[in-house]
Parts: sequence; C-alpha cells; structure tokens
Amino acid sequence: MVSQPAFPISIDDIEAAARRITGEAVRTPLLRFPALDELTGGRILIKPEMLQRTGSFKFRGAYNALSSLSDNEKKAGVVAWSSGNHAQGVALAGRLLGIPTVIVMPADAPQPKIAATRSYGAEVVTYDRWSEDREAIGRKIAADRGGAAIIPPFDDVRIIAGQGTVGLEIAADAKAMGLALDEVVVNVSGGGLIAGVATGVQASMPSTKVFAAEPEGFDDHARSLRAGERLKNPSGASSICDALLSPVPGEITFTINSRRLAGGYVVSDEEVLQAMAYAFRTMKLVVEPGGAVSLAALLSGKISAKGRTIALVLSGGNVDPEQTARALAL
Amino acid sequence: MVSQPAFPISIDDIEAAARRITGEAVRTPLLRFPALDELTGGRILIKPEMLQRTGSFKFRGAYNALSSLSDNEKKAGVVAWSSGNHAQGVALAGRLLGIPTVIVMPADAPQPKIAATRSYGAEVVTYDRWSEDREAIGRKIAADRGGAAIIPPFDDVRIIAGQGTVGLEIAADAKAMGLALDEVVVNVSGGGLIAGVATGVQASMPSTKVFAAEPEGFDDHARSLRAGERLKNPSGASSICDALLSPVPGEITFTINSRRLAGGYVVSDEEVLQAMAYAFRTMKLVVEPGGAVSLAALLSGKISAKGRTIALVLSGGNVDPEQTARALAL
Repeated sequence: MVSQPAFPISIDDIEAAARRITGEAVRTPLLRFPALDELTGGRILIKPEMLQRTGSFKFRGAYNALSSLSDNEKKAGVVAWSSGNHAQGVALAGRLLGIPTVIVMPADAPQPKIAATRSYGAEVVTYDRWSEDREAIGRKIAADRGGAAIIPPFDDVRIIAGQGTVGLEIAADAKAMGLALDEVVVNVSGGGLIAGVATGVQASMPSTKVFAAEPEGFDDHARSLRAGERLKNPSGASSICDALLSPVPGEITFTINSRRLAGGYVVSDEEVLQAMAYAFRTMKLVVEPGGAVSLAALLSGKISAKGRTIALVLSGGNVDPEQTARALAL
Repeated sequence: MVSQPAFPISIDDIEAAARRITGEAVRTPLLRFPALDELTGGRILIKPEMLQRTGSFKFRGAYNALSSLSDNEKKAGVVAWSSGNHAQGVALAGRLLGIPTVIVMPADAPQPKIAATRSYGAEVVTYDRWSEDREAIGRKIAADRGGAAIIPPFDDVRIIAGQGTVGLEIAADAKAMGLALDEVVVNVSGGGLIAGVATGVQASMPSTKVFAAEPEGFDDHARSLRAGERLKNPSGASSICDALLSPVPGEITFTINSRRLAGGYVVSDEEVLQAMAYAFRTMKLVVEPGGAVSLAALLSGKISAKGRTIALVLSGGNVDPEQTARALAL
C-alpha cells in the first residue's frame, strides 16, 4: 500500500488563518433563499462573499499572507499582480497592517477595480495584458525595491489557508442549521479558494463533494480533474468573467484539488448573465460575472439539486454597473 | 400622577409572531460593513430586509396576520390594498397558508411589484391612484365575496407584531456581538414597521433611541412627533420612494410611535439615489428607494454617527432596475 503525501495545508492552517483575520475580515453569513429552494427542489445555502471587505473573498487570503510576514518583510513592502480582486485585498490588507503595496494590474481591468485598489492606498502599475508579462514586471519591481515580498494570487499556502476560512464558516453555519452538506460549488480561477474551501469543509464533513464552477474556455480544472494532470486553457479564449481568466491550475492548489474535488461544471457567458440578473431581481445581491458562475451552474440545471443540500460560494461583487445593466437587458 | 394607557402591542405579541413566522420567514442577518464604519466614524449595523422573502419586511406582518385567522376566515379569503410590498407579502402568505387573496394595487405601481404579486398567486385588481379610493374598492370586493377579511398594510396589531420581529432580531444579534444600540433608524410610511421595531428593541434595550427616516414631502411622522398629534402630508407631494407614500401616520401605530420614537430624519430624492448607488457599489445590496431612506440619512450626515452604535433597517429591494440605473447615473 502506497501512502499519500501530506497535503500542503491542513485544517490547522485554516484555523490559524481564521484567528488572524477575525475582527478584520467580515464574518459573512450563510443565507437561505426560499425562492431558490422552490425553483430547484433543493436546500440551497449561499455564501455571499460580495459582502466581504473589498467586495470579494480575496481579502481573507491577502490579510492572512501579509500578517504572516516578519517585521523586516513588512518594512520592505509587498508586490502583487492581479486583474482586480486580489489587488484590492492586498491593497487594503497592506493599509491596515502599515505595509506599502505595489499592484501590477492589466490596463483593461474593470475601472472600478483599479480605482478601488488605488483608494486603498496601493501604488498601481498597469501593463498590457496581451503583450507584456505581469510576473516579470512584478518581479523586477520587487527586486528594484530591495526585495519586496511577492504575494501570489493563489499558489501560496498562506493564501489558500486564508481563503479556507470560507469553508470553515460554511461548515460551521450549516451545522448550526442542522444541515449536512451534500455538495459545495465554488467558482475557480487558479484554484486557491476551492482548495481552501474543500479543506475547510471536508475536515468536519468528509463525505461532502466539492465541485469547481468555471466559464467556457477556462474550464482547465474540469478537464485537468478528468485527466489527472494540469491542462492549460486554449489561448485566445475569452469570457466576461474577468476574475476567472487564469491559464492553468496552480501547482500547489492542484496537489490539493486533484485529491479533494469531485469534478467541475462549465457555464456560458449567457448563463452567467442570467444568473447575475436573477441575483439582482430575486436575491437582491450584486454579483460580478466571475462571482456568479456557481449560481449559473445551478440555475442552468447543471447541478442536480432536487432533495439535496448544496452550498454555493458567490465569490465577489466588484462589477462595472454597465455589466449588470447588460445582464438585466436594460 | 396619571398612568399611561397600555400599549396596543407588547413584546409578548412580537414573540408570539416570531414563533408563527419561524421556518417561513427568512431570519435575516445583522451585517457589518467596515467601509461604512470608516466613512462615518460609527459602528453601523445593517438589517437587510431586501433579503427577506418577497424582497421586503412586509412578509413578516402578512404571514403573522394571515396565520392568525380562524379556519372560517381562511376559507373566505382576504383582501388587501398596497402599492407593492404589502401586496407581495399577503399574496405569498396566502399561497403558503392556502388562503385566496385579492390585492388592490395602483395601476402605476412598479411593474415588477405587480408581476411578483400575481406570480405568488394573488388576484390583482388595479385602480387609478389619482381618481379612485382604494379602500372603498377593497371593502366592496370583501363584501361581494361574502365577508373576506381585510388585511390592512400597517394599522393592525397583527401586522405591527409581525414587523416587530425585525426589532427582536436586531436586539438579539447586537447583543450576541456584545453591542448596545445607541440608535435604530427605520424607514417609515404608515408607521407599522417602526412601531414594531421600537417595541421589539426597547423591550431589552430601553434606552435605545428609535428614529423615523422619511422622504421630503412625506415627513408626516417627523412633524407629527414634534406636534404631538397626527399631521397629514401636503397633497400633491411626490417622491421616488413609492413604498413610503402614506398620507398620514396610522392611528394605532401613532399611539405607539408618539411614545416610543425620538424623532425623524428627512431626506431628498437625490440623497436617496446616492444611497442606492452606495449600496450597489460598496455594500453589493440592491435597495429600492423607500428601502434606502435610513441609509440616505446616514450618508448625508443627518445622523450623528461618530463613536456611536447605530442600526439601520434597509426595508426592501423591489426596485425597477431602471431606477437603480438612474441612481448609478448610467
């Protein structure tokens, strides 16, 4: 019998992260929407991370990572690259902890995300998404500033542990409601959030199945999970889900996800827009495209919900209002 | 010494209502938004009743009133008049309890409110807001149907007790956070919600001040509280807050509110639109104009928040998306 290697993070890491972020991150609730239960025939639990500080779950991992730095590292500042939500998380965590932050962002990122990142006090450096390499730019800035620490968006145990607090809270709140979770569905880009959530949930509910939700053209996790190895997305694919455009599963995250996840759902941009409109009209929540993918998988009938208890993470709400207007067909 | 007459409802009525609606109404959370605390210098607690079933707090009172009917009354059905949110509350409560419902609604009510009321199974009868008397129409329908019970929107002890569960939950959740409330601000039309909330909160926090929030032109409570008697709004006033257009404080509600409330804030339509936009962009919540008045009073600086703990009820989210687009200046 071959023993499995240890996981890169454990429930202890997530519990330590939970202690670090308590009082700084928002403890988001686990919401019920009877209308959604009636529509699907299931018991649907919604984890609304658009209500998190900075408007997405990313603040959790960023704050955990930055507060883990040594005093000398804190003084040298940090550098990160992100299309928007990780940027805001790192920028705000830096301000709260007194750590200077430089964020490398694509020039065509949603303007509210760039403006919000600056408003949290970060220095924003923009680059051309199609011709420049953001990691090279970020590493050069870090070196030029005397070795500023790089805070990766997902492939980092501190980041994964911080995002895992989402899973810890889902399991605790479901238990408080007297519910055992059949399934948890999480929006996926590099896989940091879902790796943390799976670890956090399965620590106390080991038989809960965890599924990825991805947009068409960026279904690298769904395909990689079937293949048993990390597969890239085709180049040239496009999606309205600006938060979910990572080209390939993370290395650390996939060592977790390949063993913890049950599979993936894939949805179209049209299904995402319909989910955003449903969230606005019926749930009264503002969701960004990448935050609505799990809901789109449910509403489009891809998730088998009847008679089952399913938690969906709605991961962020930092949307250009024009995008919401488009979803509502205004 | 002259003893005061007893209040029309007590905390016992609210606790009985809470037992009736448990499992049917959503137990909405009490939310924190650090961005709002930073902006105002206070500790702001948000009771998001747009997350309530039917998109507003009205379901609570309606379900409590309808479930209080005798079996014979239930068979005869109920009649209500409402510009939209009470309509939806009564319609859904009727469907859940197997009680036929007829709702008299103004023909110019927001279309989503009329459509939602029909979708819950109610028979909707429209009337002209400017030339017809909705109460006369409703009473005639009730008589024609062999004495169907009339479910008033606010001036009814069963309705007030149901809405009071909002106050009960605010006080319980604030206590669980270790916070004593300095002030609670509630959007007001006929005064049923605020009468219930004040009763529910002050039962365990007697020194908490409760304030009304009203739109300009419909500040009948602010003026009536100062005058010590029920004063009407001037005829011909208009406001985008379609849920808050009652002409005068209710009779039963004012016997409670005149003794329990500390005063009222008054905001302009422009301030309401700004609050709706802030809720969308920063809080990621969809709020209707009449649901955003308390937030408008805070954001416009009318509420003294610095160093104080203040709960705001955001009472509903049933907005025409075009109205949200207008708030966001799309």
